[in-house]
Amino acid sequence: MLKLAVCGYPPRDFLEFNDFINSCLDSVDEIASHTRGISVIVGAPSRNETGHGKPLFNSAFILSDGKVQKHIHKTLLPTYDIFDEYRYFEPNRAFEVVEIKGVQVGIAICEDLWNVGNNPLYTQTPALALKDKGAKLIVNIAASPFSYQQDVERKVVLRENAQKTGLPIVYCNHVGAQTELIFDGGSFFMNKNGEVASQEVFFEESLIINELQISSGEFKSGSIQSGNKIQLIHDGLLLGIRDYFKKLGFKKAIVGLSGGIDSAVAACVAAAAVGPENVTAIAMPSRHSSQHSIDDAQYTGQALGINFSIREIDELHKSVENSIGDVLSVGNPVANENLQARLRAIIVMGHANAQGSMAIATGNKSELAQGYCTLYGDMAGGYTPLGDLYKMEVYALAELFNSRATTAGKNAPVNESTLSKPPSAELAPDQKDEDSLPPYPVLDAILKAHIEDGLDIKSITEMGFERKTVIEVLNRLEKTEHKRWQMSPAPRVSVRAFGQGWRHPLASKHSWRG
Amino acid sequence: MLKLAVCGYPPRDFLEFNDFINSCLDSVDEIASHTRGISVIVGAPSRNETGHGKPLFNSAFILSDGKVQKHIHKTLLPTYDIFDEYRYFEPNRAFEVVEIKGVQVGIAICEDLWNVGNNPLYTQTPALALKDKGAKLIVNIAASPFSYQQDVERKVVLRENAQKTGLPIVYCNHVGAQTELIFDGGSFFMNKNGEVASQEVFFEESLIINELQISSGEFKSGSIQSGNKIQLIHDGLLLGIRDYFKKLGFKKAIVGLSGGIDSAVAACVAAAAVGPENVTAIAMPSRHSSQHSIDDAQYTGQALGINFSIREIDELHKSVENSIGDVLSVGNPVANENLQARLRAIIVMGHANAQGSMAIATGNKSELAQGYCTLYGDMAGGYTPLGDLYKMEVYALAELFNSRATTAGKNAPVNESTLSKPPSAELAPDQKDEDSLPPYPVLDAILKAHIEDGLDIKSITEMGFERKTVIEVLNRLEKTEHKRWQMSPAPRVSVRAFGQGWRHPLASKHSWRG
Repeated sequence: MLKLAVCGYPPRDFLEFNDFINSCLDSVDEIASHTRGISVIVGAPSRNETGHGKPLFNSAFILSDGKVQKHIHKTLLPTYDIFDEYRYFEPNRAFEVVEIKGVQVGIAICEDLWNVGNNPLYTQTPALALKDKGAKLIVNIAASPFSYQQDVERKVVLRENAQKTGLPIVYCNHVGAQTELIFDGGSFFMNKNGEVASQEVFFEESLIINELQISSGEFKSGSIQSGNKIQLIHDGLLLGIRDYFKKLGFKKAIVGLSGGIDSAVAACVAAAAVGPENVTAIAMPSRHSSQHSIDDAQYTGQALGINFSIREIDELHKSVENSIGDVLSVGNPVANENLQARLRAIIVMGHANAQGSMAIATGNKSELAQGYCTLYGDMAGGYTPLGDLYKMEVYALAELFNSRATTAGKNAPVNESTLSKPPSAELAPDQKDEDSLPPYPVLDAILKAHIEDGLDIKSITEMGFERKTVIEVLNRLEKTEHKRWQMSPAPRVSVRAFGQGWRHPLASKHSWRG
Repeated sequence: MLKLAVCGYPPRDFLEFNDFINSCLDSVDEIASHTRGISVIVGAPSRNETGHGKPLFNSAFILSDGKVQKHIHKTLLPTYDIFDEYRYFEPNRAFEVVEIKGVQVGIAICEDLWNVGNNPLYTQTPALALKDKGAKLIVNIAASPFSYQQDVERKVVLRENAQKTGLPIVYCNHVGAQTELIFDGGSFFMNKNGEVASQEVFFEESLIINELQISSGEFKSGSIQSGNKIQLIHDGLLLGIRDYFKKLGFKKAIVGLSGGIDSAVAACVAAAAVGPENVTAIAMPSRHSSQHSIDDAQYTGQALGINFSIREIDELHKSVENSIGDVLSVGNPVANENLQARLRAIIVMGHANAQGSMAIATGNKSELAQGYCTLYGDMAGGYTPLGDLYKMEVYALAELFNSRATTAGKNAPVNESTLSKPPSAELAPDQKDEDSLPPYPVLDAILKAHIEDGLDIKSITEMGFERKTVIEVLNRLEKTEHKRWQMSPAPRVSVRAFGQGWRHPLASKHSWRG
């Protein structure tokens, strides 16, 4: 029982096609035809036949005895961040409960429980309305996108629903990934006092069973899940890549390994997700690459047991300089820096296209936020697994991979020197990231305050950051939207990721002055 | 007087920042302080202080005598296609009229007039509500995105409003462009019987004046605009590029000229928009390029009077083959085709970065819809001016450029052989587009039926197309979403363009079976 389980979530503009809706409804009938002795709740779109409002409802179908018994509609339609539900769906305005095996069940769909009277976005409070209609149990079918804070927040919100209604709740969440969105499962049974009685593990499909004592409003107790931030991100990314590859029909990944932290961790993620035997890594040193970079790349390749090779790019580089040296020599020197990144992309994409593998872009959220990356260069690839991790989170994830490896008696995949050396793009002599950007701990904190917490210059300055730095960071963020416009999907692990949930103007003359 | 004139439309997620809203409101006050003897209606976001619903309203501020007199809010909030208004704004629910110089004026904001009781999306009919409140005149402030059909549709909708209310209408539309969206202006005065009394020209800012006789509900008659499809698209694209360049601070464009129709027309558009002296074109023949392609490219370069040069890519091509020939020789041959497109992108982007010019991607809607294009190759660039034109529309636009040039006594910029030869990517020996795709007149019609008219396989087949072809085209459309996900902005000239208005899943296992 899941929100829009039949078509996957989010189906996006597929919902505009009649054919697609017909397929969904046919599938519901097909599932219904198999129900014998049990009741099934399944999410699917349904047509709004009232002649008023959006053409569809986001519905839960109640199936038993071989057929569809009833369907109810979603009331609260999130239309913010990555959600576009009001683009497609008309909200429910009338509540009803459903009798299942003699119990009056109030069915809520995902966001429906996200207002218990204190969310200004909504005027309806479905849980209270369902209680008024006689519900003894609330069932929530959800496709609630993962962020590393989401399980904790979910439990807080659901607890409020349980406590305000005095009803137990079954919370059933989607597991899987859809392009940028990861769904972490972690479904649970909540007693009427708001305590979680038992919870399934995160990131895995499972059949979960519990027993409710209707009189006490309590379920049987079982295990409860929690997870630390980086471990959750780790597990989420693996599921994200796996499902993305599976849905697109890819088995193999290819990644450029620079010897730096980002590509090392991207290779770790890829190897863990699709198996080291399916990952090819290429070190592509240029005239500006240091020997330690090549060594560190090789070290990671060997420690992970992935296919590793070295392809120097200097001959290619010279060849392009022969061709357009007249242009490069007099213009902005960044052109020659970008050129190196793009020659590497040519090699990576050549492998990807020839071998049918997916190129992994290695950028992190901090770099992408500042445009410290090359379009059609290091940004090239079909997926950007670290695109929602700030630089310091990439380091933390490296430590996790290292400790998992050493615990398993293997070599740590990220070399000590990769962890300790100052980050550098190595596209010009003696280049360091900090020549162009604030130190990452500062940069990350400013970016998070603005992107995720929505803070403005004054508030961020009051956190203790230099006003000039804050303004520079925010303006660089805005002036580089054109690069992120063309980035490949990055799995969302925070409450605000670049991609479909971040809709900023590309061409604007606005600048932050504070 | 324009919808959200102060911040531009659409401001998108900037609306989430307090700083940004403050700047908007400060600007409204600043404008108000200059009003002496006249009334001004200006669009801006305003804060929803009710504590319920979305945090903002989409508002019209009425300014006179040096201050803000009042503000009213938008009622109908489009949330479909490129519109995301319910993401940000709470709808108005109470109507009031505003007295301006003794006349009761009903102010409507853009979409507010898009329901006169027959649009199932909405339950409110603002024009009738304003009439009930005593309005003698309706003023609509709009930022209505251009499509080549939009002016005609707008007049039909506004006529219904005039006729149902018996009120004259002042329709004031935005002029300019914002990334993918073009605003065509064409503001008009409409008599109460629904006739347009006078209309301003399209695509130009202007101050327009008319006189209304309140008793008759009629304005003075003046000129009225209309335009044929390709002429409107031509004018729209020029405004689109100009504003995009201006807002991003670019003066110069660079384009790869293949000798084919798309790059020739892209060069025509760029030269017309930013001036031939600001456009650089490069022909980059490969071992598969025919001599006529080089000649045709050179012809177009010279006819347009743009900077033109030839840079062979075969040396570079060999150099990459030396580097990764082992990979290319055994894998999918498409890798070597893509490689050529990417080497050209390296040259174009090298120029762009060195010289500070904007690279123009030359793809059209038919190719992009079928993934008949190379990521980081011909798709590379900051803007895709032809990205919402089907191939046959690109030919029609070429004819327009040719006829304009010859009328002006210049050489037609698109050579006869470019117009007449069968389209080819020239990435493999004797390659023709029709080896991989249906003939363009068929392909274009199927794509338009599906993308713009929302038709499914059965309906498109009933139009007379072969079922197998329709299914292949639709599946190719769906399987190549990953390429369009990374495309640069393309100005919208149809009712449905790729980009922000086309939100399809990238990773789906759905396929069309009909």
